[in-house]
Amino acid sequence: MGIFEETEALVKRAKVASRAVALLSTERKNAILLRMADELEAQKDAIQKANAKDMEAGQAAGLSSAVLDRLRLDDKRIKGMADGVREIEMLPDPVGEVSDMRRRPSGIMVGRMRVPIGLVGFIYESRPNVTSDAAALCFKSGNAVVLRGGSEAIHSNLAVADVISKAAQAEGAPEGGITIIPIADREAVASMLKLDHLIDIIIPRGGAAFIKYVTETSSIPVIKHDAGVCHVYVDKKADLAMAVEIAFNSKVQRPSVCNAAETLLVHKDVAQKFLPSMVERFAKADVEMVGCDKTRSLVSGVGEATEEDWYTEYLELKISIRVVESLDEAVDHLTKYGSAHTESIVTEDYAASGRFMAAVDSSSVMVNASTRFSDGGEYGLGAEIGISTQKLHARGPMGLNEMTCQKFIVLGSGQIRK
Amino acid sequence: MGIFEETEALVKRAKVASRAVALLSTERKNAILLRMADELEAQKDAIQKANAKDMEAGQAAGLSSAVLDRLRLDDKRIKGMADGVREIEMLPDPVGEVSDMRRRPSGIMVGRMRVPIGLVGFIYESRPNVTSDAAALCFKSGNAVVLRGGSEAIHSNLAVADVISKAAQAEGAPEGGITIIPIADREAVASMLKLDHLIDIIIPRGGAAFIKYVTETSSIPVIKHDAGVCHVYVDKKADLAMAVEIAFNSKVQRPSVCNAAETLLVHKDVAQKFLPSMVERFAKADVEMVGCDKTRSLVSGVGEATEEDWYTEYLELKISIRVVESLDEAVDHLTKYGSAHTESIVTEDYAASGRFMAAVDSSSVMVNASTRFSDGGEYGLGAEIGISTQKLHARGPMGLNEMTCQKFIVLGSGQIRK
Repeated sequence: MGIFEETEALVKRAKVASRAVALLSTERKNAILLRMADELEAQKDAIQKANAKDMEAGQAAGLSSAVLDRLRLDDKRIKGMADGVREIEMLPDPVGEVSDMRRRPSGIMVGRMRVPIGLVGFIYESRPNVTSDAAALCFKSGNAVVLRGGSEAIHSNLAVADVISKAAQAEGAPEGGITIIPIADREAVASMLKLDHLIDIIIPRGGAAFIKYVTETSSIPVIKHDAGVCHVYVDKKADLAMAVEIAFNSKVQRPSVCNAAETLLVHKDVAQKFLPSMVERFAKADVEMVGCDKTRSLVSGVGEATEEDWYTEYLELKISIRVVESLDEAVDHLTKYGSAHTESIVTEDYAASGRFMAAVDSSSVMVNASTRFSDGGEYGLGAEIGISTQKLHARGPMGLNEMTCQKFIVLGSGQIRK
Repeated sequence: MGIFEETEALVKRAKVASRAVALLSTERKNAILLRMADELEAQKDAIQKANAKDMEAGQAAGLSSAVLDRLRLDDKRIKGMADGVREIEMLPDPVGEVSDMRRRPSGIMVGRMRVPIGLVGFIYESRPNVTSDAAALCFKSGNAVVLRGGSEAIHSNLAVADVISKAAQAEGAPEGGITIIPIADREAVASMLKLDHLIDIIIPRGGAAFIKYVTETSSIPVIKHDAGVCHVYVDKKADLAMAVEIAFNSKVQRPSVCNAAETLLVHKDVAQKFLPSMVERFAKADVEMVGCDKTRSLVSGVGEATEEDWYTEYLELKISIRVVESLDEAVDHLTKYGSAHTESIVTEDYAASGRFMAAVDSSSVMVNASTRFSDGGEYGLGAEIGISTQKLHARGPMGLNEMTCQKFIVLGSGQIRK
């Protein structure tokens, strides 16, 4: 049996299981999740033994210390995985909610019922804690899941998946409801991406090149979590002290994540007053700055921004700064160079805030708040599966609801169409 | 300039226009739609002159009389097109609606705002009335649109598009907001389907082979309106007189459409009592019947159903009939052979209705109602763009809301993340 056939057989079994998972009661799903969490802790030794194999192989292969660190499953991380599953257990079950139920002139009642999507394919790179996280999120929303982690974490992932799928089955989950593809060869990923008659949705997690590969290869709909080239725009009517705080927080509070700001746009009328204190603040925090000619004529310590800079997601302590003629020019800039993730305007002007909210076509549009709030937890969605940068199905931070869809239900009493 | 470059240039202009269309006020959009409707009637002669060219070419090419009939734009059809646009004008504008606005512990207010998707690609086969219909639906929901109709209707489509896009511009719509691709060569369609950085969504309308071509070729998300292999299941606790009416209506009232039933499933406990009157009713209406061995042992006048029959969307006066052992077997049957479009159970049993609603994973699930109700108008969605047979973004009948997406909006007062 080749890699494609082996993958297909596993995915087929998962598809069959998905129908049973969809019908599990909330009580049963919660019991499954708690058992999964408990077993992760109880079987810590087996997981860490498998993890040691990956760590050794990784050291031998010369993986960077950052990658090795992400790979490591110490006691604290295993506790974190178990607690993560317990948190998901506590979230409300999205399945079965009925909304918009209305009686129609024909006499039928029509509403929408929230139901699982079916079979979710989760493809991720190194961190093995994603294995339990993804399985728990899928299960809570009534979906079966096929997991395929990075090959450098294969022993760890298999051990974690073994523990949680056995725990799930012990509590009544169907065999195959949590399936891991145990094939290290990359062809297994390519095989998954072709099974569009079995897998309903693919969620990739990893670096830009990986996401690009998945979206270009997949014939299954992909929900992608792409780059975040986020902007803060300081309007001519901004509270400038607030603007310094918001821009600083957006860039510096956690620069390595997608909702950190990469570019600061400043209205020309306030640039001279605003930029000196802003640049001083950034400089004190060792933020590298590049800017347009206008910016550089007003303040020192700012390098020259290239055209490429405006497109760049630095993910580090570096920011690009541009002075713009108007709010509309700011919107044009972020539309052209941004990734439609999160943009914030700082202004005290009512009309400007309204114009910015309407004109900016990004997944999150903010007024007087740090871009760092663009997050499922901060938005109150409970668990965050990712931040979708696409427009269809899910846009922005995704919670459990976004792992479901809605079907129409019709309750009649014998109506026929005239 | 090749076909790809020519198509790309038109689509690029439409993309630029889409930003302006998204910001048009409801009042302006409605004025545009009314002007479009008026001009369609006022410029009837020019449209009919172009239509005559297509009709002549079609006759010369030996198109069937059914295709020629769909192609014809007589006075009544042009009036119908104008009235269709006027009906869309009267629907509520979905854009700008804010929902789920809540204050979070951090002090920010978070909500979701309904916004246009952006640039919609509409690709359709012969009927030229789709041109005005699609343009009006897209405009009302704040989207720009790129249209590409069938090559056999190219003169008609160009004439209609010319009238409505000039009317739209006269009322303040941006140039290119309604763009038609004037290239008869099929390569123009292939070119459109590659422009995933410009077009946000593709909506195809046409036959099965055409939809298949579009979904397989497109790198842009497609919302497809696929086959409807719909089922009526007569439960052991059904009101049998009601069951006859519902099954008959589901099959016969309009057999050529996707929400007509193709298969009747009957619980074994009631088969003997139910089938004779049902079969008699179908026979009187000249419905051809094929069935399983059990069915054929109970009633006469029913041919033998092949495995292929259970998968078939007849779209004519023909139905397949199967006796099942249980509700679960009925669900298994329709899950395996159906297209997840619309299924109806006839039952007086509370538990059976609940089980069927939960277990059937179709876009519409009904109790005691004809499958023919699966329709945007009957569901109260206003205009119907199509019936989506996919799970993501839109499922089942699609109204104007499904031509939009939701972005998050955040209103702060200087909040930064701690």
